[in-house]
Amino acid sequence: MGFNGPVLALSGGVGGAKLALGLYRILPPDTLTVVANTGDDFEHLGLSISPDLDTLLYTLSTEANPELGWGRRDETWTFMAALEKLGGATWFRLGDGDLATHVERTRRLTAGESLSRIMDDFRQRLGIVARIAPMSDDPVRTIVETDQGRIDFQDYFVRLRCAPVVRRLEFAGSESARANPEFLAALADPDLRAVIICPSNPFISIDPILAVPGVRQALRDCRAPVVAVSPIIGGKAVKGPTAKMMEELGLPVDAATVARHYHDFIDIYIADETDRDAVAGLDVPVVLAPTLMVSLEDRENLARTVLAAADRVPR
Amino acid sequence: MGFNGPVLALSGGVGGAKLALGLYRILPPDTLTVVANTGDDFEHLGLSISPDLDTLLYTLSTEANPELGWGRRDETWTFMAALEKLGGATWFRLGDGDLATHVERTRRLTAGESLSRIMDDFRQRLGIVARIAPMSDDPVRTIVETDQGRIDFQDYFVRLRCAPVVRRLEFAGSESARANPEFLAALADPDLRAVIICPSNPFISIDPILAVPGVRQALRDCRAPVVAVSPIIGGKAVKGPTAKMMEELGLPVDAATVARHYHDFIDIYIADETDRDAVAGLDVPVVLAPTLMVSLEDRENLARTVLAAADRVPR
Repeated sequence: MGFNGPVLALSGGVGGAKLALGLYRILPPDTLTVVANTGDDFEHLGLSISPDLDTLLYTLSTEANPELGWGRRDETWTFMAALEKLGGATWFRLGDGDLATHVERTRRLTAGESLSRIMDDFRQRLGIVARIAPMSDDPVRTIVETDQGRIDFQDYFVRLRCAPVVRRLEFAGSESARANPEFLAALADPDLRAVIICPSNPFISIDPILAVPGVRQALRDCRAPVVAVSPIIGGKAVKGPTAKMMEELGLPVDAATVARHYHDFIDIYIADETDRDAVAGLDVPVVLAPTLMVSLEDRENLARTVLAAADRVPR
Repeated sequence: MGFNGPVLALSGGVGGAKLALGLYRILPPDTLTVVANTGDDFEHLGLSISPDLDTLLYTLSTEANPELGWGRRDETWTFMAALEKLGGATWFRLGDGDLATHVERTRRLTAGESLSRIMDDFRQRLGIVARIAPMSDDPVRTIVETDQGRIDFQDYFVRLRCAPVVRRLEFAGSESARANPEFLAALADPDLRAVIICPSNPFISIDPILAVPGVRQALRDCRAPVVAVSPIIGGKAVKGPTAKMMEELGLPVDAATVARHYHDFIDIYIADETDRDAVAGLDVPVVLAPTLMVSLEDRENLARTVLAAADRVPR
């Protein structure tokens, strides 16, 4: 425990990675571990693709594309153009530089290395002094039950652009997946300073992590403060299908709903200052702050707010 | 038989593809079949790579890179740069567009399609009205026995830049490989106008094709004229390790040696006009011509010379 102890962040892709970058920039080197959702992972064109892990990898290495919010800086698209000419599947856009991550990861997985070991090597090679870890080395695959049937996550998310109406989410393989031992060890670490639930989509980015056996209970048992940041700002999702999905799941689209979703393990909730009324009735302590992250400064400021809130929790 | 009948060319990569392009440009559409060496094929980074087939594919589709003589026009190299950062193997240069061919081929091979079917689809998608066919759908792998031991072909050729001294070449898998049925059918076709042995390296590009059971005998039995074009010009190889390899194998480095190498199945030999003396004592009829192909016109002119020579052979 202490203000220089290790910090654990749970994150999906783009939105979560913004706060992860803020935390990375203000924390002492080697204190941050970001555990990523791998429910979005899939096999495509014979390659093993891990979108959330890679978004974190690129974002923390500053290889990220600042315009797109995903993919790599200075990316080229020659592969996709050539693949299209050969009649290959082009619905999932793979940049030329991004491909290197997938090809090399797939090669190493096939050779028997674990995903966590490969990602840890990648982040070191890209000069990142934070750990980026999959929630599990075992495959967990998010399946979206919709009005059009059961759909693999990337099919739903990318190919169908989230158009089908969501009825339920399933995390296939989660029952038998073993949580990343490093992840569980960090949660049990008596020196742990805080656990941050990044402002990712609770249903498709954080729930798969919570579905891995032992994780939810370890969060409940965790002695360090667990702080969640709302992905809802002013009653809307900043980006992506969070709000649409909440509606379809019959939930009120507001910041309080997300806090209630995490009710059994969070110690404090960070909501946007525009959502004061929405979170008024919550049982969990709330800190109001500007949570929209546009600039790099916004990311760092929100990270400071989150850590300050955690550090004020009595232990 | 006849001056508009089908033509069969046997080819390796760059040198052979130049003449294949000349033939393609002057022949009526849909009359040319180019059978490629697959002894250079290998698995790299988890991808199935067929260098000679792809050189032919790109050359006939005019996707070829006119400066490099291999690879694709307007190629980018973002993948290689990113792969290097991740610690991946970079000794075999894979362009971003070229990668699409390997990724899509590997995906389709894994799904159970044959190499010949995939390549036939690729060439159609790239608008090529000639067939490009592997010598066999079964794996044949050239292994170079050298003073430094047995070395896989691409290791010898690309990584070691042909530096080791060659003692013998082995075509692993050739004993049990089945010749492409389309290839054998073309050789037995009574309408076949000519078989052209392109000016490729006899030892590493043509010999693997001849090593596939039934091919050499089918060439001997072929009723159409078989014409070989010398890869040696003025006692030197135009490009690549042909001359070095001939020396190391204890063979005289001259145009006559290549003709003798093919002695049992060729009906006519095309040698460069500068090699008049070298080929003076050969048993096989020789046609002297300018064989150096620099311009597109050179390729077409040599193709015309070869076909005219074939058409003059009494049948």
